[in-house]
Amino acid sequence: MGGLLGVAVLGAGHMGADHIRRLDQVVSGARVAAVADPDIERAKQAAAGLTGVTVHTDHLAALDAPGVAAVLVASPGPAHEEALLACFARGLPVLCEKPMVPDSAGALRIVEAEAALGRRLAQIGFMRRYDAEYRRLKALLDAGRLGRPLMLHCTHRNVSSPDHFTSAMLVNSSVSHEIDAARWLLGQELTAVTVLRPTPSSDAPEGLIDPQFVLLESERGALVDVEVFVNSGFGYQVRCEAVCEKGSARIGDEHTMVVTTGGGAAQEVAQDYLVRFAGAYDREVQAWVDATRRGEVTGPGVWDGYAASAVAEAGVRSLHTGGRVAVDLAPRPRPR
Amino acid sequence: MGGLLGVAVLGAGHMGADHIRRLDQVVSGARVAAVADPDIERAKQAAAGLTGVTVHTDHLAALDAPGVAAVLVASPGPAHEEALLACFARGLPVLCEKPMVPDSAGALRIVEAEAALGRRLAQIGFMRRYDAEYRRLKALLDAGRLGRPLMLHCTHRNVSSPDHFTSAMLVNSSVSHEIDAARWLLGQELTAVTVLRPTPSSDAPEGLIDPQFVLLESERGALVDVEVFVNSGFGYQVRCEAVCEKGSARIGDEHTMVVTTGGGAAQEVAQDYLVRFAGAYDREVQAWVDATRRGEVTGPGVWDGYAASAVAEAGVRSLHTGGRVAVDLAPRPRPR
Amino acid sequence: MGGLLGVAVLGAGHMGADHIRRLDQVVSGARVAAVADPDIERAKQAAAGLTGVTVHTDHLAALDAPGVAAVLVASPGPAHEEALLACFARGLPVLCEKPMVPDSAGALRIVEAEAALGRRLAQIGFMRRYDAEYRRLKALLDAGRLGRPLMLHCTHRNVSSPDHFTSAMLVNSSVSHEIDAARWLLGQELTAVTVLRPTPSSDAPEGLIDPQFVLLESERGALVDVEVFVNSGFGYQVRCEAVCEKGSARIGDEHTMVVTTGGGAAQEVAQDYLVRFAGAYDREVQAWVDATRRGEVTGPGVWDGYAASAVAEAGVRSLHTGGRVAVDLAPRPRPR
Amino acid sequence: MGGLLGVAVLGAGHMGADHIRRLDQVVSGARVAAVADPDIERAKQAAAGLTGVTVHTDHLAALDAPGVAAVLVASPGPAHEEALLACFARGLPVLCEKPMVPDSAGALRIVEAEAALGRRLAQIGFMRRYDAEYRRLKALLDAGRLGRPLMLHCTHRNVSSPDHFTSAMLVNSSVSHEIDAARWLLGQELTAVTVLRPTPSSDAPEGLIDPQFVLLESERGALVDVEVFVNSGFGYQVRCEAVCEKGSARIGDEHTMVVTTGGGAAQEVAQDYLVRFAGAYDREVQAWVDATRRGEVTGPGVWDGYAASAVAEAGVRSLHTGGRVAVDLAPRPRPR
Repeated sequence: MGGLLGVAVLGAGHMGADHIRRLDQVVSGARVAAVADPDIERAKQAAAGLTGVTVHTDHLAALDAPGVAAVLVASPGPAHEEALLACFARGLPVLCEKPMVPDSAGALRIVEAEAALGRRLAQIGFMRRYDAEYRRLKALLDAGRLGRPLMLHCTHRNVSSPDHFTSAMLVNSSVSHEIDAARWLLGQELTAVTVLRPTPSSDAPEGLIDPQFVLLESERGALVDVEVFVNSGFGYQVRCEAVCEKGSARIGDEHTMVVTTGGGAAQEVAQDYLVRFAGAYDREVQAWVDATRRGEVTGPGVWDGYAASAVAEAGVRSLHTGGRVAVDLAPRPRPR
Repeated sequence: MGGLLGVAVLGAGHMGADHIRRLDQVVSGARVAAVADPDIERAKQAAAGLTGVTVHTDHLAALDAPGVAAVLVASPGPAHEEALLACFARGLPVLCEKPMVPDSAGALRIVEAEAALGRRLAQIGFMRRYDAEYRRLKALLDAGRLGRPLMLHCTHRNVSSPDHFTSAMLVNSSVSHEIDAARWLLGQELTAVTVLRPTPSSDAPEGLIDPQFVLLESERGALVDVEVFVNSGFGYQVRCEAVCEKGSARIGDEHTMVVTTGGGAAQEVAQDYLVRFAGAYDREVQAWVDATRRGEVTGPGVWDGYAASAVAEAGVRSLHTGGRVAVDLAPRPRPR
Repeated sequence: MGGLLGVAVLGAGHMGADHIRRLDQVVSGARVAAVADPDIERAKQAAAGLTGVTVHTDHLAALDAPGVAAVLVASPGPAHEEALLACFARGLPVLCEKPMVPDSAGALRIVEAEAALGRRLAQIGFMRRYDAEYRRLKALLDAGRLGRPLMLHCTHRNVSSPDHFTSAMLVNSSVSHEIDAARWLLGQELTAVTVLRPTPSSDAPEGLIDPQFVLLESERGALVDVEVFVNSGFGYQVRCEAVCEKGSARIGDEHTMVVTTGGGAAQEVAQDYLVRFAGAYDREVQAWVDATRRGEVTGPGVWDGYAASAVAEAGVRSLHTGGRVAVDLAPRPRPR
Repeated sequence: MGGLLGVAVLGAGHMGADHIRRLDQVVSGARVAAVADPDIERAKQAAAGLTGVTVHTDHLAALDAPGVAAVLVASPGPAHEEALLACFARGLPVLCEKPMVPDSAGALRIVEAEAALGRRLAQIGFMRRYDAEYRRLKALLDAGRLGRPLMLHCTHRNVSSPDHFTSAMLVNSSVSHEIDAARWLLGQELTAVTVLRPTPSSDAPEGLIDPQFVLLESERGALVDVEVFVNSGFGYQVRCEAVCEKGSARIGDEHTMVVTTGGGAAQEVAQDYLVRFAGAYDREVQAWVDATRRGEVTGPGVWDGYAASAVAEAGVRSLHTGGRVAVDLAPRPRPR
């Protein structure tokens, strides 16, 4: 497949550092060419031990560093719009972590900017589309053997939330994964959101509305319910049951060694998304590298990033008002 | 435990005939003393082969038949109010199938009539409280090890619905089981109902709103969601996951032999509630017979029957209006 | 079905007392008419609260007590031969706990004695044939959909063994259940036994050869392996996987509520055979009562009792010699 | 980690071609530098699309090709001894597919040759040691929480066997995986083998002894049983249950989406080892590449290859004689 793809990684935090490790040690066909982070020490640390890498405080400088042929954006959400536009300006293929752009207005500007280019450059980091179980479920639904999907029952649990986590982030950070997964599995846009509030857990931080129960309606009438519970205490669990006209399919149960002792027959529960979705991230980045080296852009795109932002925004409004909020999507630019 | 308890069975339809078989062949300590059905042939057929049984077209005559010391009401719902009042008038202990009385006003009259007696006589046939799995879940929740319950996720699927089934019956016949189970598991009253309508299955009869997705709110803020899908085509599945502050517990998965062939590793799915809940019915009737012979009345009572009717009534209103409907319970008579 | 069947229960130990409770409180159509135990206090205690029961120190006297129409033998194995012969002499239908007769020579005498009667009177207490899962497996194998059975993989674990348990009892008490189950499932006699000795568990009592691994060969070449481990410490587990030409089927996995906490996703493991096989005992005794009241004898018979003794005897020889021991069955009396 | 590791791949058959694809497209840090196969067209086809690769009919010529820094041996077993010795002569690190050398005498020569070098150069391709589930089981056993392992119950099923498959190959090709896995999991040598022959499946080719049931004894008394059934018809299933003093642990159950339809609740069963162990092969080769680039040799070594050959050889003798065959290992060269 020719030489290694040189990648500039923007953002050297938790996620950026993990992607740098992945590009260096896991993925075939790529190398890290540049790392940028406003905190130069963090950038240096993430690049330590790699050869042929330049480090930068300025994101745009990294794009112009020698050997950079593609970009992986792992900086905080508010920095994404500028980064994506800079990639578009340079014609650089880019894999951008979710959220593409936190607010839907900014997200729509990205949609329009890429549409103006007349070709795709961006893949958005909805890594669940690369999870083996989700792909099996998607293939089953697409094959049509179970008839039309009527409902999706989803669970999204974390052990505990980080300090800075807000009630709105249960919707626009956690549930945003289910929003994209539901759109993708159903092959439909989501048209309305209702966020319900069960009594909060005593183990959630004071003031955090956790758990929440989110209802999503699709354009052809499927109903998606999502339990999101980020201080469950007991594990990282992402499950989905698709209920169709002629059968149901369930993914996300524990699939590990069964250990039987005096305490019962037990299976370990993943404690972290990096454990549960390690394979999905690896496949996502490998697929992006492979496509980029072939000169293609595949996977979820900027419209998916925009739609997820718009639905999440409606969800946050529903969280505050308590009622059902319709999603108002802009017209989708024609694919060319 | 002394002589056999003579039981009058009112109603010799599907359910009544099954209870007659159960009292005769399964349960210890009881015998069928009288059978009543407006269709005398049906009554005779259900009593065929039994000795010491009188058959009647008139329900009240059966109560007064020789040897009758207790009553099992398995007639259609609209006949229950009269039957229960007649039992109360005679001081006869009675096990009454659900719905206790279809409308909440009538149900409340039963509550008041028993309260006026100053003692319990009636047990209501919410047989799930006698299912081994539900009992295990109830014991776990009561033990408090998982903290407060925050959500219950419930599934209630049938293979197909009978001809006469209406959209309202998904709520007041099918979901009424979940209504009682939720009240019992949570130890709380339900205060509001919202019925949502996903796109109906093409396999449901024309005009039937199936599936439905029912949201129940409890007085202390727990949220209960119920998928009810009576033309699922694939099985009789009753599942419940309780999500608590410190853990979750799930019942109702398939618990059968795993058969692995070229087609995969498969487990049979129950096709009928009499299969899934055969043990629960047996235990329910045995427990009722045992308590009655001890001179006690245990199990779910008339208040439970009333509350289930009231919540189901609110649910049917929500099905028609599309919005959330609050449940307005009468004050509960003091227990004596 | 007419009046209650009066049953004499011989033996009021753990198992006898449990059967007395079952006949009185669980099973339909029977009553306890007499109880015999050499320890009269034990007999009285087991009969406490029952009416119409006589208690005896002499087993034979109990058979002749008023109202006795059938016999349940739950005394220690060495007393069984005399009890069965006495039942045969009186023409009394009898359900005899396993082992029918501990030594195969005595067991053969029972076979011959019943053959001389010209009709069946005895059912032997191989209760696994009444377990719901075993019955499902038997029905599947008999249906022939999976082709011929080639192997059975069996597991038989107890939490701990009673004080008096010997190495031979792992074979002739524990594995005797698998011996009968294998004969029944395969529909074939067993022709050879080899008992292997893995390193004993440190948690087994000093000198007890535990676990053992038992190989049984059937007349048409199926191979049955049994792990028997009576001081496993972790649970009462009885599992069986049948491997056939066109598929496999597995029974005995844990079928209980899944509780997920910080410690993982766990299912309770049964700790006692009375928990795991409670339903099987109930169905066994109910089926025996029903058949007896119809004037029939069904279920496993004296030949099954004899064959199990003969195979177990060969197994104990193999345990001592370390080699394969052929089973030498007497000719089976023709059924009449 | 510096430049890419140039790898010569010997053998361009099914397995070799798969490793070439893996080195090129999956693994990070390596490139294919040379491909050798007696069939030059096959070598060319396997190398098609790659750059910087030379193709050879002569294995030794490939070792000397430009850029070759390590060797992956995927040629037929009989060619391995020469290939390994040539790698040793050149000081080239080598990953050699199993069997290391088919006969134990040849395998021992490899052990001695590497011992004479005074350092490790070879890793043997027992890829199960890199399977996520096996690693979890190994970690659990090593942690000691379950006490000493007493038994391993193993299952090894294929859908069907290739045309050339012989009865001996069930032992020395299929079970050889379990032989190595058992040695590794137990941390003990195997000292005896007994191969039992259940009645063959009608679906196995005429004359093939399939299934077989293999008993392995370890030096400290653990007992390992292996069902090997290569014409099961129903799937590729590799399972292992470790029974220890204080608990058991089971791996290899189906871990896939549950699809519920009118036919039951089903999980797909893997049909092919490349599906079941794809991740294990990827991790194995990645770990080898990583270690080689660090200048280290890790993973299973030549002694493991020799021991597996010796045990398998004893197994084949047992298959022919029907009796237990002791394994006679040469003294292990001291590690330096």
